[in-house]
Amino acid sequence: MRDFSTGHEWLSINTATVRKSRGAELPLPDIIEACVRRGIRAISPWRDQVQAAGLAKISQLVRTHDLKLSGYCRGGMFTATDAAGLKAALDDNRRAVDEAVELRAPCLVLVVGSLPGALQGKAAHKDIGLARSQVRDGIEQLLEHSRQAGMPLAIEPLHPMTAADRACVNTLEHALDLCDVLDPSRTGALGVAVDVYHTWWDPKLQQQIERAGQDRLLAFHVCDWLTPTTDLLNDRGMMGDGVIDIPRIRNWVEAQGFAGFSEVEIFSTGNWWGKPHEEVLDTCIARHKTAV
Amino acid sequence: MRDFSTGHEWLSINTATVRKSRGAELPLPDIIEACVRRGIRAISPWRDQVQAAGLAKISQLVRTHDLKLSGYCRGGMFTATDAAGLKAALDDNRRAVDEAVELRAPCLVLVVGSLPGALQGKAAHKDIGLARSQVRDGIEQLLEHSRQAGMPLAIEPLHPMTAADRACVNTLEHALDLCDVLDPSRTGALGVAVDVYHTWWDPKLQQQIERAGQDRLLAFHVCDWLTPTTDLLNDRGMMGDGVIDIPRIRNWVEAQGFAGFSEVEIFSTGNWWGKPHEEVLDTCIARHKTAV
Repeated sequence: MRDFSTGHEWLSINTATVRKSRGAELPLPDIIEACVRRGIRAISPWRDQVQAAGLAKISQLVRTHDLKLSGYCRGGMFTATDAAGLKAALDDNRRAVDEAVELRAPCLVLVVGSLPGALQGKAAHKDIGLARSQVRDGIEQLLEHSRQAGMPLAIEPLHPMTAADRACVNTLEHALDLCDVLDPSRTGALGVAVDVYHTWWDPKLQQQIERAGQDRLLAFHVCDWLTPTTDLLNDRGMMGDGVIDIPRIRNWVEAQGFAGFSEVEIFSTGNWWGKPHEEVLDTCIARHKTAV
Repeated sequence: MRDFSTGHEWLSINTATVRKSRGAELPLPDIIEACVRRGIRAISPWRDQVQAAGLAKISQLVRTHDLKLSGYCRGGMFTATDAAGLKAALDDNRRAVDEAVELRAPCLVLVVGSLPGALQGKAAHKDIGLARSQVRDGIEQLLEHSRQAGMPLAIEPLHPMTAADRACVNTLEHALDLCDVLDPSRTGALGVAVDVYHTWWDPKLQQQIERAGQDRLLAFHVCDWLTPTTDLLNDRGMMGDGVIDIPRIRNWVEAQGFAGFSEVEIFSTGNWWGKPHEEVLDTCIARHKTAV
């Protein structure tokens, strides 16, 4: 396993982690500047942040600073109640692929979606099997475009507590089953993003990381699980503040040959989003050395 | 599948569902009386409620009214930081078995525990593998007593969002792996409790229910998953108010020969615990007919 204790060359900042500073929205160019100033070599930006600043501008900043991406957040949300909705989702995903190409991302991260309308509080139906079928079909159709664009897709299994509204793929095993079906010859076009927050609880995690292997391990995300956790979405902890044995999981991933960035992705309404982003980034650097 | 639409003879009330009425604690004898008055034939009481009223009194009430139990809540919490703690947990579980016998419960439900101290906000360690090992050993030791007492143990896999503090067994597959190890010959001494709230998201649920089979399906619990869910413990929904396709899951369970009660278990600080218990019970009866 790589030694992270002496530097942060393998740290990436998912820009949602500092999307707010002192509670106020922080524009992506400011986030990039703050990262560059600290010698952070990589980011994973969100589409809404890129759009707010303009793709051309962000693309230029990335090139100017020779920033790497550890991923692009995010595609997915494939499910819908009718054909028009499915087509709109697919079209939007194709645009996400093109943006990822422009930003030289190594992969487009997919949060696949689940019951239509559930995120707005009113699910259109209760058939998670149908949602899973739409997700499978959506990824299959998107692959036609993403293969041509040379952009790998990374299915991110999300914690089962998001199964109703955000992602109906909730285990690494399920994500890898999809990879087996949709890219059986392991071309590199399809893989997974392993986030310790979503997967740490899984008794089959080590086994499934080994099943994934280097060619399907496209991204590695870190944060921590707090006790208590007070919100299902926005109460993620800083590495070291929770119960996840992050080095153990990183060891499993790196044993497969993964040699990419450890991407810090923290949503935290009650704590980190209320602090100055400088403090958050400095803490990420420190904890990357001691707790990842 | 049994037709529940015309009556509620297979409804059981987990007494936590009405542990508060209008926000105030409701004693177990009052809960029993309210159930009996409505022709509810079965309950699943919690140990703290039984202790508050006295085991002898509850035992007498159960016999007087010819009430069935659908389970006894609960044993488990097997993990600890030292041998004394492990022994204390085992001793307490043996007492729970004896109480379950006195109340003629069909099984003692096990919420197995996880990282010691996490429930109090400060985990003693991060080794969920160690917790799982202690749980395995704890059930094995408890089985010596429960077999003699003739009391089946029902491992209840809890939702993965409880993996840090309440249960390190989070899938039906994992629970059944434990059954295979600890009771390979399927004597009936060990099985599972399937709660739709904890398991509905699992893409392997149907497959694992079939694997369990009739002899290991000891209890079936219902409530609903709300969108949004605002609390990880106490925001469960009434059947029909959420996204779980409960009849589909009940159909899978009954296809294996399960013919017991559907036990309603709702923890709801913000909604149902604030209402009059009469309204809650009447709603349970109505929804048992339409949404279970």
